[in-house]
Amino acid sequence: MKIVIIGGVAAGAKAAAKSRRELPDAEINLYTDDTHISYSACGLPYYIEGNFEDYKLLLVRSPEDFEEKNVHIHLKHRAVKIIPESKQILIQNLDTQKAFLVEYDKLIIATGARPVIPEIKNVNLPNVFTLRKIEDGIAIKEKALKSKHATIIGAGYIGMELLEAFVRQNLHVTVCEYSPQIMNFFDEDMSKIIEEQLKSISNGRFDLYTSELVTELSGDTNGVNAVKTGSGREFSTDLVVLCAGVKPNVEIAQDAGIELGITGAINVNGRMETNIKDIYACGDCVESNLIVSNTKVWVPLGSNANKQGRTAAINACGGDDKFCGVLGSAVTRCLNLTMSMTGLTERKALTLGYNPVSATVTKNDKVGYMPDVNNITLKLTADYESGQILGAQAVGAGDADKRINSLTAALLAKMPVNEFYKNDLTYAPPYSPTIDPLLNAAQILASKVKPKD
Amino acid sequence: MKIVIIGGVAAGAKAAAKSRRELPDAEINLYTDDTHISYSACGLPYYIEGNFEDYKLLLVRSPEDFEEKNVHIHLKHRAVKIIPESKQILIQNLDTQKAFLVEYDKLIIATGARPVIPEIKNVNLPNVFTLRKIEDGIAIKEKALKSKHATIIGAGYIGMELLEAFVRQNLHVTVCEYSPQIMNFFDEDMSKIIEEQLKSISNGRFDLYTSELVTELSGDTNGVNAVKTGSGREFSTDLVVLCAGVKPNVEIAQDAGIELGITGAINVNGRMETNIKDIYACGDCVESNLIVSNTKVWVPLGSNANKQGRTAAINACGGDDKFCGVLGSAVTRCLNLTMSMTGLTERKALTLGYNPVSATVTKNDKVGYMPDVNNITLKLTADYESGQILGAQAVGAGDADKRINSLTAALLAKMPVNEFYKNDLTYAPPYSPTIDPLLNAAQILASKVKPKD
Repeated sequence: MKIVIIGGVAAGAKAAAKSRRELPDAEINLYTDDTHISYSACGLPYYIEGNFEDYKLLLVRSPEDFEEKNVHIHLKHRAVKIIPESKQILIQNLDTQKAFLVEYDKLIIATGARPVIPEIKNVNLPNVFTLRKIEDGIAIKEKALKSKHATIIGAGYIGMELLEAFVRQNLHVTVCEYSPQIMNFFDEDMSKIIEEQLKSISNGRFDLYTSELVTELSGDTNGVNAVKTGSGREFSTDLVVLCAGVKPNVEIAQDAGIELGITGAINVNGRMETNIKDIYACGDCVESNLIVSNTKVWVPLGSNANKQGRTAAINACGGDDKFCGVLGSAVTRCLNLTMSMTGLTERKALTLGYNPVSATVTKNDKVGYMPDVNNITLKLTADYESGQILGAQAVGAGDADKRINSLTAALLAKMPVNEFYKNDLTYAPPYSPTIDPLLNAAQILASKVKPKD
Repeated sequence: MKIVIIGGVAAGAKAAAKSRRELPDAEINLYTDDTHISYSACGLPYYIEGNFEDYKLLLVRSPEDFEEKNVHIHLKHRAVKIIPESKQILIQNLDTQKAFLVEYDKLIIATGARPVIPEIKNVNLPNVFTLRKIEDGIAIKEKALKSKHATIIGAGYIGMELLEAFVRQNLHVTVCEYSPQIMNFFDEDMSKIIEEQLKSISNGRFDLYTSELVTELSGDTNGVNAVKTGSGREFSTDLVVLCAGVKPNVEIAQDAGIELGITGAINVNGRMETNIKDIYACGDCVESNLIVSNTKVWVPLGSNANKQGRTAAINACGGDDKFCGVLGSAVTRCLNLTMSMTGLTERKALTLGYNPVSATVTKNDKVGYMPDVNNITLKLTADYESGQILGAQAVGAGDADKRINSLTAALLAKMPVNEFYKNDLTYAPPYSPTIDPLLNAAQILASKVKPKD
């Protein structure tokens, strides 16, 4: 049995490790155009921030670890073409440029995603970075430690995490977001709160501009040194990071006749099978079922990638496992602020045809007399007709993340809000107020949905 | 409409406030033998610890706040006898000792609980305290600030919280627990971990003895000054706090013919009605339905008391509300250690006739390279036959509380573990590892329950 895996960050590495455990005698080869495998890309901002000095802490398993288990890792080897009819793959060695063919019985595609490069004049200047791979992180940190000002283009998850990292490294930072709201996965009212809270703690350390399209970079052979925007703003900078989102690496799959889904990522079933026999896909290159609404979403996250890689491997090895989908749960931190969500926003629910109603509360995350008490703002959304909870968003200096995680099992169970508000959360003064903000919001929301007969 | 409420800490105060909102014209009187109402008793250890100086921060609403809403609060007035036939209550003014009769249309009993006084020689010496009321907290703090050594008898929730408080006030502390395990609401294996972790951080600041029965206190007119135990241990001390548990104040109810339940607390239905018409009960004096197993439990906690007080008031005022029960969720902190649980322990599940299986994991609470990463040990228990999750216990310096709260909605939904492990929890390096310890335990446990056909 020959198992070939393309890509080796989270899903690919997990699929390789799990395949070995499932089939001790299979021939397993993993090809990646990357110089590293099995690493925590999500940890790169924390490396840049200086939480730890050795980037090797980001590596989960080394190629040697895999080799010990007789799993062959081929770094700097790009998969160029898949020929499903003959079950062959054309691979190119990026050092020698030489191409060769390999055969597979089962193929697992885990090609991941790559940063979107926005259309900006001189975007290819030195010291204009994206953050995706280990090398990116090393290069950005090296440059940041010698810099005074950094520009971040795009205020999504990675933009926010880099803002924290650069501020902690004592750089002055300018963030430019082209849309009217930062963190635009959130509803507009919640994004506004994030923006206001960030601005209130800026203390001159960073500027945050929305509706601000960066149009031009300028510089010399030493690299970028200035930024121009559509609104006429001009400022000097030492480095730029493009955080304008990511897109799935699907070209090789598409070229082989593998179907993409509505989101543009690869369409797979619960067994992580593509439309072509014996070809599986997992990780950031595939779309998922959003359990709440039973619709397709693309949520490129390491936690999902790990689970999908496991499922793909089990099935490729002859077992039977199902990945039932995602809830869209996510969290990030920017300085003292936690931003977390799960399920559908109100805006997204509307586009899917729900009649969403929401309750928003701003409350202490602990009892008010505790010394480290902080606020959180929590927005809980349900469908008016059925009362089903659709999602929640929570932001604040307080423990917003706990409240989102306290909800996810209810989303999994498609629980109505007038059942959920009876939930019994833990209580003690250092951990929550007597009535938790989440239950508070649920109680209010239960009175807003259609009454049960 | 005359509404009378007996007791005014959490449930009673909540019932009074909610009754006023439900019936703006009702005559509402609240009688309590206490000198304060509507206070956070759970906050007393944090007051003693010195987190804040003014005990008034523990007061949620003052008698004046109530009086403004035309709710009459009678402090230091003890309810002596209920005469259901004539809907009268005999009340004694504790200042004048004079008794008088009041009439009610609806009576809400919220008499709470009181500390168990263990049989110890000279237990009535000065500076031997229990911790339940505001005055207790004030007296203990006053004495602690002048003391060098404190003795805590009983290592349950309050004992652990006082251990933290005294250590932070730089007292040397000796804790004596008569049973073989501290925190004996937990399974023995989890208690052992708590004990080991506490001992490992003691650093000479406290001693923790199990199977250690305190038999005798000695002292003089200045108060207690020494402790003797059954094992022959003798030591000097400046103050003693009895933390040997609490029992419900049910005598007045029982005397009036109100039925108690199997736990010894008052038996009420979901509407918080006792067996006697127009008499409701709520808070620490009643037992509750444990949703997981549909059995009766007594869980005296402020969070439940609040919800029950609300339900009792709605129904007493002619509305219709139901308190569906508790999950037994609880959390406490002792120094750097969080201890949290929900649902049934394995031991308790066994006594209820389940066939419990458990998975225990010890994992990082965040990604390992984050600077503030800590361990948690999590034990997840399910019923072998049905796969239903029965409960979880989590302890450690890491964020154990979040994992317990991530489970409670699944208990509410009576979710089997092989559905729960598909849960999508938030992930980012400062908040959790790629695979959350809870999902890790669930994945292991799913393979231990009876396979589904």
